[in-house]
Amino acid sequence: MIYDLIIIGLGPAGLTAGIYAARYKLKTLIIGRDLGQTAEAWLIENYPGFQDIKGMELIEKFKEHAEKLGVEIMQMVPVNHIKKENSIFVVKTGDDQEFRAKSIILAIGMQKRKMGIPGEKNFLGKGVSYCATCDAAFFNNKVVGVVGGSDSAATAALMLSEHAKMVYIIYRKDALRAQPAWVEKINKNPKIKTIFNAIPKELKGDDVLKSVVIERAGKTEEIALDGIFFEIGYKPETNLPAQLGVETDEYGHIKVKPDMSTNIEGVFAAGDVTTPSEKLRQIITASAEGAIAATSAYKYIKSKGGD
Amino acid sequence: MIYDLIIIGLGPAGLTAGIYAARYKLKTLIIGRDLGQTAEAWLIENYPGFQDIKGMELIEKFKEHAEKLGVEIMQMVPVNHIKKENSIFVVKTGDDQEFRAKSIILAIGMQKRKMGIPGEKNFLGKGVSYCATCDAAFFNNKVVGVVGGSDSAATAALMLSEHAKMVYIIYRKDALRAQPAWVEKINKNPKIKTIFNAIPKELKGDDVLKSVVIERAGKTEEIALDGIFFEIGYKPETNLPAQLGVETDEYGHIKVKPDMSTNIEGVFAAGDVTTPSEKLRQIITASAEGAIAATSAYKYIKSKGGD
Repeated sequence: MIYDLIIIGLGPAGLTAGIYAARYKLKTLIIGRDLGQTAEAWLIENYPGFQDIKGMELIEKFKEHAEKLGVEIMQMVPVNHIKKENSIFVVKTGDDQEFRAKSIILAIGMQKRKMGIPGEKNFLGKGVSYCATCDAAFFNNKVVGVVGGSDSAATAALMLSEHAKMVYIIYRKDALRAQPAWVEKINKNPKIKTIFNAIPKELKGDDVLKSVVIERAGKTEEIALDGIFFEIGYKPETNLPAQLGVETDEYGHIKVKPDMSTNIEGVFAAGDVTTPSEKLRQIITASAEGAIAATSAYKYIKSKGGD
Repeated sequence: MIYDLIIIGLGPAGLTAGIYAARYKLKTLIIGRDLGQTAEAWLIENYPGFQDIKGMELIEKFKEHAEKLGVEIMQMVPVNHIKKENSIFVVKTGDDQEFRAKSIILAIGMQKRKMGIPGEKNFLGKGVSYCATCDAAFFNNKVVGVVGGSDSAATAALMLSEHAKMVYIIYRKDALRAQPAWVEKINKNPKIKTIFNAIPKELKGDDVLKSVVIERAGKTEEIALDGIFFEIGYKPETNLPAQLGVETDEYGHIKVKPDMSTNIEGVFAAGDVTTPSEKLRQIITASAEGAIAATSAYKYIKSKGGD
């Protein structure tokens, strides 16, 4: 059996592409490891229609929406390999299944960046985390640090302040770059302290993390803490684009035309892994890109005629 | 008092721009006549997160969302005039109020096209309608026509079939161009008949509409009916862009750069009135454009410094 469309990625871009593909009556399969960054968001206040909603709750709604329209979804399954044979794409998953499709949408998102400092690997799960939403509850009444100054860092700090007794935001610049609405909440929160112009250099401890060594104004300081959350950005997934020969920019983001097509015929891309929407990597923009990509895939399949 | 941002238009683009502007802590006012086309949509099945929702219900959620975040909203108020004085925009409304802002987002959408045939004006409100959602209930157990072949025409026909005893879709081409999901529902609906390759030429009646004269394959036919709904597309609003000197394309759509800026500094645009998103004029794409426009307005204001 050959699908009309296989979408790789279960974030807002992939699931919205699925919703639109289903409305175009395309036989569609979505494969993804997990529900992406959205699922990790503590609270979302800017997806129109929901005044505030947990990330997991919103993305589950997207998923149920796609499923209701008849889209097949495989979750917890990584795609290991993808290639084009004549005009058909062959997708191999981590559990050794093989699927075929006439078109592909890469909605593979981005991965969290690691800091790459001594101790970071050793204390993973013993104080080091990359997901405040997942791990905040382990730090009840403890002292934690958040490294970064973005929206992700800001919301991580706010969420951690509901559990921890003290939250340090450690950021290399002299002001947070998060949305003013988050910055205002942080400034009003007595549990959150910002440490600016500071760069983490090393993590120390015994069985578990005990402190972070930072460099600030040329001097080295050691701050005692029980947990540290790195929110220092994301990098795009690059394996699958490389296997297909899909062009990316210098940062690994997939180059797309306004219709979300790539340089490879039949391959489209949407969401955080791509370059448009003025790099405003939001749920609403990723979803719009997914809708456009599905529309373009539909036109592409129709232009090719039947099977 | 000078607003940071005045948004004109209360559709998904304008309201999402408002939501984002509020998150950027911009002092924001949205002015609009009504809640736009979305409010007229019988049923929306492709806005991610809501499996199916009445258009009015969804757009009210957008509006409440913006209001909750502190955006000021003036509804039922047309903007009659807008001009730029030095770097400040002066907006005059139909009720003779005047407002000032540092930046403007035009999210003014589109208006329904008229057919321009004899009888169309005379029978307005006496059988002729441009809004099935508004007027369907008046045609219980009657015979109605829908002119057009788009998604709007298809959904109007489906909604009318819940009231009327017979619905003719009159379309100039030989197949509907609506989404396959709607076409399938129409084909399965015994109350809906399609009349293809047909063009309405005249409306006849006495006090109220009695029939439509159509031309099909060079021949003239008269079809008895009680109501007729024109769903023959939209045209962009052009007055305000013209007053500001904003560039439009040959169809009147506002030309925008990828960041939704126009040729006039401080003026941004979003939604159906603009040219991007591959002309996929959907709630999700309009909303994404609104988010991008608000972000660009925020950057513009910050680049200008304080008051």
